[in-house]
Amino acid sequence: MHWITVLQKASFRTKQFPVQFRILRLISSHLPNQVTEDAEKQLSHQQNAGASKENLILKVPKGTRDFSPKQMAIREKIFSTIISCFKRHGAVTIDTPVFELKELLLENYGEETKLIYDLEDQGGELLSLRYDLTVPFARYLAMNKIKRCKRYHIGKVYRRDNPSIKRGRFREFVQCDFDIAGQYDPMIPDAECLKVMHEILTALQFGDFLIKINDRRILHGIFTVCGIPEIKFERTCSTLDKLDKVTWEEVKNEMIREDGISPECVDHVSEYVQLHGGPCLIEKLLKDPKLVQNKLAMEGLEDMKLLFEYLSLFGIIDQVSLNLGLARGLAYYTGVIYEAVLLHQKYNHLNESLTISSVAGGGRYDGLVTKFDSKGYKVPCVGVSIGVERIFSIIEQNNEMSKKKIRTTETQVLVATPQKNFLALRMKFISKLWNAGIKAEMIYKKNPKLLEQLHYCEETGIPLAIIIGEEELNNGVVKLRDVVTRKEVNIPQENFIEEIKRRLEKYNT
Amino acid sequence: MHWITVLQKASFRTKQFPVQFRILRLISSHLPNQVTEDAEKQLSHQQNAGASKENLILKVPKGTRDFSPKQMAIREKIFSTIISCFKRHGAVTIDTPVFELKELLLENYGEETKLIYDLEDQGGELLSLRYDLTVPFARYLAMNKIKRCKRYHIGKVYRRDNPSIKRGRFREFVQCDFDIAGQYDPMIPDAECLKVMHEILTALQFGDFLIKINDRRILHGIFTVCGIPEIKFERTCSTLDKLDKVTWEEVKNEMIREDGISPECVDHVSEYVQLHGGPCLIEKLLKDPKLVQNKLAMEGLEDMKLLFEYLSLFGIIDQVSLNLGLARGLAYYTGVIYEAVLLHQKYNHLNESLTISSVAGGGRYDGLVTKFDSKGYKVPCVGVSIGVERIFSIIEQNNEMSKKKIRTTETQVLVATPQKNFLALRMKFISKLWNAGIKAEMIYKKNPKLLEQLHYCEETGIPLAIIIGEEELNNGVVKLRDVVTRKEVNIPQENFIEEIKRRLEKYNT
Repeated sequence: MHWITVLQKASFRTKQFPVQFRILRLISSHLPNQVTEDAEKQLSHQQNAGASKENLILKVPKGTRDFSPKQMAIREKIFSTIISCFKRHGAVTIDTPVFELKELLLENYGEETKLIYDLEDQGGELLSLRYDLTVPFARYLAMNKIKRCKRYHIGKVYRRDNPSIKRGRFREFVQCDFDIAGQYDPMIPDAECLKVMHEILTALQFGDFLIKINDRRILHGIFTVCGIPEIKFERTCSTLDKLDKVTWEEVKNEMIREDGISPECVDHVSEYVQLHGGPCLIEKLLKDPKLVQNKLAMEGLEDMKLLFEYLSLFGIIDQVSLNLGLARGLAYYTGVIYEAVLLHQKYNHLNESLTISSVAGGGRYDGLVTKFDSKGYKVPCVGVSIGVERIFSIIEQNNEMSKKKIRTTETQVLVATPQKNFLALRMKFISKLWNAGIKAEMIYKKNPKLLEQLHYCEETGIPLAIIIGEEELNNGVVKLRDVVTRKEVNIPQENFIEEIKRRLEKYNT
Repeated sequence: MHWITVLQKASFRTKQFPVQFRILRLISSHLPNQVTEDAEKQLSHQQNAGASKENLILKVPKGTRDFSPKQMAIREKIFSTIISCFKRHGAVTIDTPVFELKELLLENYGEETKLIYDLEDQGGELLSLRYDLTVPFARYLAMNKIKRCKRYHIGKVYRRDNPSIKRGRFREFVQCDFDIAGQYDPMIPDAECLKVMHEILTALQFGDFLIKINDRRILHGIFTVCGIPEIKFERTCSTLDKLDKVTWEEVKNEMIREDGISPECVDHVSEYVQLHGGPCLIEKLLKDPKLVQNKLAMEGLEDMKLLFEYLSLFGIIDQVSLNLGLARGLAYYTGVIYEAVLLHQKYNHLNESLTISSVAGGGRYDGLVTKFDSKGYKVPCVGVSIGVERIFSIIEQNNEMSKKKIRTTETQVLVATPQKNFLALRMKFISKLWNAGIKAEMIYKKNPKLLEQLHYCEETGIPLAIIIGEEELNNGVVKLRDVVTRKEVNIPQENFIEEIKRRLEKYNT
């Protein structure tokens, strides 16, 4: 690891660890992940040896981030849009611990199991941070023997992935999940999940989107009729899932070279997985001479036909496209799968090339609860997960570009004074406002300047100021100032609360 | 570890791990913590060796819990009360990762550092789950060089403590913190923190409470004039902090035997720390012949006098008591400290014996940000933390006793039909409701029975049902049913949305 020595010898012979760390971070994008981590660790250890305040590194863990008040204001608006849609569809909410028994998480994520964060074995149970909210939901249903449940869950999940801020990939991120568990008539809950996805993406107003749909049964049917051995289905799904990141040529090459599928099979698969369209495509596939021989594919296609009927009744069919190349990475899907992508320009069923990465996804997983149930009881599930981190990045960027001013507080009134020694009176007045449920602030100074107080209103977007001074006190009034128009009016002290409430309605704060 | 053998041989010779675990859990409260953990681990290992679905233990990690929809409904109401108060006082909010660099958490929690959860070293940085929200806040301020900030933060924190459901002590729990950082005129932000605490406990309506206040400077002054060596101050504070759990006699004994304080000193301290009262006590102490010789104590008492003036202006002085025995466990407090306790009956400044454990606490910590700042810049802070888990337990118990019915959804309308083959029409109607922002559900069956649909409304508290059948369809109306009164009325289809909205206002849902 000679480059650490280089780092150490280069420009500083003293133990300037912060500088070394900073340099390391600057060059880290050019180094393999493991090398960077090893180096950080080594520097960390060296630094701990002679730890002092000067050497303390102030940073958040790799792949995680703080959210500032301004960012939180944006995020809370997004969460509130999402939650109000989940509630509009009658979902309850639950909460589960951020870590689970390690053994419960294993075997659910295929190759990605290596990305699970483990807790140190400090005596007691072996624990891991949750990788998603779906497996804890299935565990919750099985543990409590719940046969039906429509729930949403907003929570943080953890993946020891190689973080990429550009691609919005973090090691700690929030998931917003809506799932319907229970045995119902086919495709009704599935259609509602898609309606939920559609409502949320519409409400967030960040442009056109397209919902791609497929069905694992159709996909497996295609694999079968194309001659791919069943044992390679999962692997082939994973490879196919890369289609939104790389070209079909690259996927083809990987299938041949890494998955060991014959070029003939791949060519054959190729004809199918590049198809996309609406109800006409479904009708065509239902008559496909090869697929008709596959029972599973026919089941999937019949259900897809029904689903499109329901989506038409829900009025969202125009933004939905059956896409036979959609695979989704996770191992637990058993039926319908879907993914929403944003479009740079007006979407078009024939042209999906202009899409950027997905902002929501989900599907049907009928076997997951069974896996946890000791008696093997079946609780079929279908769900949707909103990719809130990507959505946040897009909205944050849009706001920055439009230079939109974002308030980080909801304060309605500032209690101000132009004179000295009015702290006690300000405290009395603000107390009345708080007790009346009005959002109010005052400057934490005994004798603040009036200009400073008014400036604070303008800076933080407080619409009203009440001003109390000697004169107002003697006349039994308070001065009310509209911060934007700078208009001032005296109102009697005895009904100042009612008057302020009346005026606030106008500002809608 | 013979009792594991006993467990294994007792009633089952087959490897019935779930039964063994269950028995272990049943008897675990009678065993020392370490023994239970070792046993769970041993059983876990044995079980993993022959793992299969039948043997999978479905449980949450020790000291953590799931929250059911009913519990979440209660919790969300509590959070919303707390957050609306924080916002009323003009606080912004931030978010920080659930884990931090391990080295940033060390040295802040004294003896309790051993309770920190570490993440496994999987390569890369050494990380720990956050122990509270205060240290991450201080790290955030120092890292971003923020000199002033009034923020709230609601988040989960982690402590590898011995869990006790009875005492509401968990390994994963939510903290609700409100803190004011910045250099201001004395005691103004401190008074606001106490006002926030008072408003929240009042709004939650679970009975009388008392806010105990003290100041670390007064406490250190007392220790000094009683002859306790400075090096033992922190230790003595920790011991004194047990006063709310054990008697003064026991605390005294621990001070003498474990902290090595002389019996004379302890007797001397005893006279002070049992004092409690209001402004009169402060006046008395300001003239106390011993304390007047201690500059720090006098500073604390002068500030306390000012604080009581402010609390009087805020109208909350009646529920506040200076309590010289209040110490608070955490090492980082430097000035005013406070704690709110619930009272079984009307509180009384002279009788605090009827208190149960604290439901909120906080204080001033002027040195924490400096510790993280490489230039040692001072950002004095004061804050309050609401003990939401204890509050939740109390409110949950109250609800159970009063058999109060709690809705877990907010659904306003069920779209029902008395006839077969009306799924498509129900879907069209429910879609209109959702698009109009009305919270609506339907049964996920092609042909549900009317009775089942109406029963679902009654069971889940949905106030309105719209019923569409052949007759209604032909007459261009929908039938609107008030679920509670069972009154039905036909309304024209063209304005059914407006009519439903009008009626919902009445239900206030």
